[in-house]
Amino acid sequence: MRIGVLCSGGDSPGMNAAIRGAVLRGVDVHGFEMIGFVDGWRGFHDGEFVELDRPTVRGLSPLGGVFLGTSRVPPWEAPVTAEAIAGLTQKLDAYGLDGLMLIGGNGTQTVSSILAEHGVNVVGLPKTIDNDLAGTDYTFGFDTAVSIAAEAIDRLRTTGDSHRRCMVLEVMGRDAGWIALHAGMAGGAQAMLLPEFPESLEQVCAWVANVRDRGRSALIVVAEGFKLEGSDDAVTRDGLDGFGRPRLGGVADMLAPLIEERTGIETRSTVLGHVQRGGSPTAFDRVLATRSGIAAADAVLAGDWGKMAGLRGDRIELVPFSDAVGKLKTVPESRYAEVRLNFG
Amino acid sequence: MRIGVLCSGGDSPGMNAAIRGAVLRGVDVHGFEMIGFVDGWRGFHDGEFVELDRPTVRGLSPLGGVFLGTSRVPPWEAPVTAEAIAGLTQKLDAYGLDGLMLIGGNGTQTVSSILAEHGVNVVGLPKTIDNDLAGTDYTFGFDTAVSIAAEAIDRLRTTGDSHRRCMVLEVMGRDAGWIALHAGMAGGAQAMLLPEFPESLEQVCAWVANVRDRGRSALIVVAEGFKLEGSDDAVTRDGLDGFGRPRLGGVADMLAPLIEERTGIETRSTVLGHVQRGGSPTAFDRVLATRSGIAAADAVLAGDWGKMAGLRGDRIELVPFSDAVGKLKTVPESRYAEVRLNFG
Amino acid sequence: MRIGVLCSGGDSPGMNAAIRGAVLRGVDVHGFEMIGFVDGWRGFHDGEFVELDRPTVRGLSPLGGVFLGTSRVPPWEAPVTAEAIAGLTQKLDAYGLDGLMLIGGNGTQTVSSILAEHGVNVVGLPKTIDNDLAGTDYTFGFDTAVSIAAEAIDRLRTTGDSHRRCMVLEVMGRDAGWIALHAGMAGGAQAMLLPEFPESLEQVCAWVANVRDRGRSALIVVAEGFKLEGSDDAVTRDGLDGFGRPRLGGVADMLAPLIEERTGIETRSTVLGHVQRGGSPTAFDRVLATRSGIAAADAVLAGDWGKMAGLRGDRIELVPFSDAVGKLKTVPESRYAEVRLNFG
Amino acid sequence: MRIGVLCSGGDSPGMNAAIRGAVLRGVDVHGFEMIGFVDGWRGFHDGEFVELDRPTVRGLSPLGGVFLGTSRVPPWEAPVTAEAIAGLTQKLDAYGLDGLMLIGGNGTQTVSSILAEHGVNVVGLPKTIDNDLAGTDYTFGFDTAVSIAAEAIDRLRTTGDSHRRCMVLEVMGRDAGWIALHAGMAGGAQAMLLPEFPESLEQVCAWVANVRDRGRSALIVVAEGFKLEGSDDAVTRDGLDGFGRPRLGGVADMLAPLIEERTGIETRSTVLGHVQRGGSPTAFDRVLATRSGIAAADAVLAGDWGKMAGLRGDRIELVPFSDAVGKLKTVPESRYAEVRLNFG
Repeated sequence: MRIGVLCSGGDSPGMNAAIRGAVLRGVDVHGFEMIGFVDGWRGFHDGEFVELDRPTVRGLSPLGGVFLGTSRVPPWEAPVTAEAIAGLTQKLDAYGLDGLMLIGGNGTQTVSSILAEHGVNVVGLPKTIDNDLAGTDYTFGFDTAVSIAAEAIDRLRTTGDSHRRCMVLEVMGRDAGWIALHAGMAGGAQAMLLPEFPESLEQVCAWVANVRDRGRSALIVVAEGFKLEGSDDAVTRDGLDGFGRPRLGGVADMLAPLIEERTGIETRSTVLGHVQRGGSPTAFDRVLATRSGIAAADAVLAGDWGKMAGLRGDRIELVPFSDAVGKLKTVPESRYAEVRLNFG
Repeated sequence: MRIGVLCSGGDSPGMNAAIRGAVLRGVDVHGFEMIGFVDGWRGFHDGEFVELDRPTVRGLSPLGGVFLGTSRVPPWEAPVTAEAIAGLTQKLDAYGLDGLMLIGGNGTQTVSSILAEHGVNVVGLPKTIDNDLAGTDYTFGFDTAVSIAAEAIDRLRTTGDSHRRCMVLEVMGRDAGWIALHAGMAGGAQAMLLPEFPESLEQVCAWVANVRDRGRSALIVVAEGFKLEGSDDAVTRDGLDGFGRPRLGGVADMLAPLIEERTGIETRSTVLGHVQRGGSPTAFDRVLATRSGIAAADAVLAGDWGKMAGLRGDRIELVPFSDAVGKLKTVPESRYAEVRLNFG
Repeated sequence: MRIGVLCSGGDSPGMNAAIRGAVLRGVDVHGFEMIGFVDGWRGFHDGEFVELDRPTVRGLSPLGGVFLGTSRVPPWEAPVTAEAIAGLTQKLDAYGLDGLMLIGGNGTQTVSSILAEHGVNVVGLPKTIDNDLAGTDYTFGFDTAVSIAAEAIDRLRTTGDSHRRCMVLEVMGRDAGWIALHAGMAGGAQAMLLPEFPESLEQVCAWVANVRDRGRSALIVVAEGFKLEGSDDAVTRDGLDGFGRPRLGGVADMLAPLIEERTGIETRSTVLGHVQRGGSPTAFDRVLATRSGIAAADAVLAGDWGKMAGLRGDRIELVPFSDAVGKLKTVPESRYAEVRLNFG
Repeated sequence: MRIGVLCSGGDSPGMNAAIRGAVLRGVDVHGFEMIGFVDGWRGFHDGEFVELDRPTVRGLSPLGGVFLGTSRVPPWEAPVTAEAIAGLTQKLDAYGLDGLMLIGGNGTQTVSSILAEHGVNVVGLPKTIDNDLAGTDYTFGFDTAVSIAAEAIDRLRTTGDSHRRCMVLEVMGRDAGWIALHAGMAGGAQAMLLPEFPESLEQVCAWVANVRDRGRSALIVVAEGFKLEGSDDAVTRDGLDGFGRPRLGGVADMLAPLIEERTGIETRSTVLGHVQRGGSPTAFDRVLATRSGIAAADAVLAGDWGKMAGLRGDRIELVPFSDAVGKLKTVPESRYAEVRLNFG
């Protein structure tokens, strides 16, 4: 049995641990041969790969990023055709591969799903810091991103309180507000603004003023994809905000001066950016990723192709791709309602 | 509605966040009155308590320990009698309480269960760093303990490698090896020794020697309750080890010289101790605890008494006490087998 | 002896520890009365202050920010006049104060110096995350800021390597590049761009390309006050960059697209922002701050007014204000030359 | 110019950064050849070494321990003889080395000093987590050890407060109490017990009781070399404590039951152990170590042999070995007196 491993999309803490888990299980226990393509599909197309064995994955668990590299190079030019799939399977044959492990998020698992439909042996490992992938309770990388964002809140809180300023922290999440929701809950933010639930500027300012009236300084977490009610393009980076004014930076940079102007409370913005996807994964993500890799190797041994290693409670289960792709896992209204009642 | 909150047993990171969640929901949203007993049942017996409202729980989420204090003072002298229960319900009446929220582990939730059987309105919030409570995927405090233990492994790894020493790290877990299993997996330990699965000294030394033969330095994580095969009392602190020799410190202090003697590899032990239960909770534990508190307050509002706020996947569910108490959640053989194949 | 404590300027990790050190020494050991003005000169003008004693400063050492609050409200309207000083000394009398402890950076210690010249009893405690204050080896707050920036580099490094991107991190430092220099050195950045030493875009891009040619991904740390050679206003936030193009965000946001355009290497920017001034101080800063507070209290006892508690080697020494104010401590050419030789 | 690098004694965070600094400067800038002996003098004796160049030291700055390995193997059998020195210089010739960089603490720099007296070209880089080396303000590794110990205090504080227990934390320091002093000051410990200053059990218990009487829970930091007044052998590990009772573990394990017995306050001990010397160095230590390495390479270029790269204020200076060796830098009475006044 010879298996190819490939990462696609943005990096996510835990990818190294996942590969290490798959290799320790697949090569050492099950006796597979495994290779890893460099920079995802880029290495697949160009024939650049490394042999994976125990020494290759030594010490990888605590390391952020992914040692194989990852990229957004696609497996084929869209839309996918029978020829594209045929070309890909010929390459698999040329590499002598019996199957693929694909580590990625929504886009990658959609590819996995298409490949599986065309009879390619593929098993998926879900990763995304955004946690917007269905078919699994959590994706590895998410817990690390939330931890870093919560730590940023802890830090901003002290400087905000010292100056009696409102602090606005922008975290990742274009379509799903999971990082903002969990980090805000962990850090005790006075409001979390999510892409799924637009709010009016009046409402946001009312919450900020209410915090001030209680003698505190407000800390607002905003997902990059949040839109003010009545505004369409808050997250576009075309130089204008949702009200046609010149924009600087992200949605937090837009929101802060608006809040300051309306409430009279000095307000500062911070865009957390790429630091939230980097660095050593949390123990939670390392364990989740390692177990996902082990489960993927076991699925290969069992010939249980066409599935993704999802987290269900405290178990890793192989779930059909149809449970995972074609939908975005967004924050449900119940979770937002739960926290919104205590905003301000 | 007037509710008493009470913590019992060892402290666990997230207890403050749980109380904060319950109060923000219970007092601010549902309009309850809430009081918290100081030092658990000790304060209940002595009439020492504080009113709980939004200012009282301000800024608590990132703080370790529990501001109310906790103790091992029992609610009654065992064995429980009808008189004991009657005495307790009279006190509840005297405090004007309609119900209790009990934050604790196995012992506490067993008490909750007994109270519920006797018609006392009680809702349970599960906490223990040991994660050995059934009825919930994870208990808050566990993720923080695992994080601290994994960080200790990362640190010991570098000094072990620099000196080509075997390092033995003892973590908590008298009856269940969850912390050792997860921290060892996160840190890439070469063996995790759990209370549930005795191993022989020969086997342990074979793993250590095997690591040396691969050119590395072994790192072993051992739960305090681990017993060498053929030894009964490894965890007793009576001054003798399982082989009748004088004991110094914990099981790691016993194991290290035995490993060194048999393998000839310099071996050092570290007993992590109380640091693994203290300090600021991880974001995961803060979120889990906060949501548990919210769910407990909602259960009170709904009159859904006699249950515990358990984690099931990504949801908090109210589970009957019968699902949680009377059994210890230990590491199942499948989880141990999964990692044992790669030991050494 | 009755002493007033007052913080001015931006908050800096360690301010709480400094006040705690001064109070434990001043009140408990020397028997002073001490009061702390809320929000700096704002509280002084408005008569808002708190009594400082042991319970007030309990547990403050690990906490970021400053519990008294700080502000940029000045002691008087510039330029200072004899009347302004007289008004201030009358207020001191009204408060019954024998002297002031002023915690602040360049601006504040200049005020200290002016007050001292006019016969007001004042002792200075130097703080600034920028480390640009003369008369002391390091100011408290700097080590924490460097630590947070170095941690950000560690995190960005892994995501940069995974995607073979050039990462540009902007840290604080309008006039002095100390944070960029030390964080960059700690994190192994391939270039540190400082306000003191303009470089051309060609040179910066040559370094980035050189890193790529060695098979790595470049990480550049840039202080917010860095200017490209031949550009005057890189740090202004007027919406235009140094070349007249619309600006988004900070200097890193300007630099990244220019690097990408010239080198063809995908480049991403991160502006660290307010997180680098917040959060729990490092042990180094807590010790430095505590010792500064102790030394300030001892200076008061000794009547050693008109000086600032500076760090000299491993000792705290009282230095005349004339050694500290009227000059900005910038990165000397020798320190920059030391690292520049290994850029790229 | 061909230079050998060698580490000796216990590992200390920053050793990797020091070697990286020396190599980037020595090889890349000054054009030296450099080799590193594996496991210190062990590799020197056995002819085991690696070539050091830029790729070899890539990414080393954030890593704890030392990639070359270190050991306590001595350069010669004591006492040193002319023959021993002659043998060593012959080996240097055989390796083609023009000089040595020796990275170590008191013992190693004493060796450096002897070698220098015998005309061997040697430059010293001081490292020890204990900070007990003269001729430098601080040694790299110390700041990291203090940070880890202070973090442990922060964690123990929360669990101690929750249970109203006295917590006793043992940190490293056989002869010098620097770690205990600085970590205790950073963490706000109620007493720091140092090897240099014996205290009676009565006095220690009086402090603990006093803390209880103020309504708090005491946290005591004790250096492993602390001796109770009137006791000689507190730190010996012969199974008996200073009063002839069976000993378990370190001095903290001895002290805790004595405190509990006398004060009636539940008391728990933690021996921090090897974790305090491992893990990623602080930014402070990385910068100090890198600069030490650069200065050592510059000293080689200048032929400035026979000296050690010491920290003096914010500068690295080459100091004669006579300033560093033959004395232990212990905590001076003034520093202890400063804190002792606020104990309890």
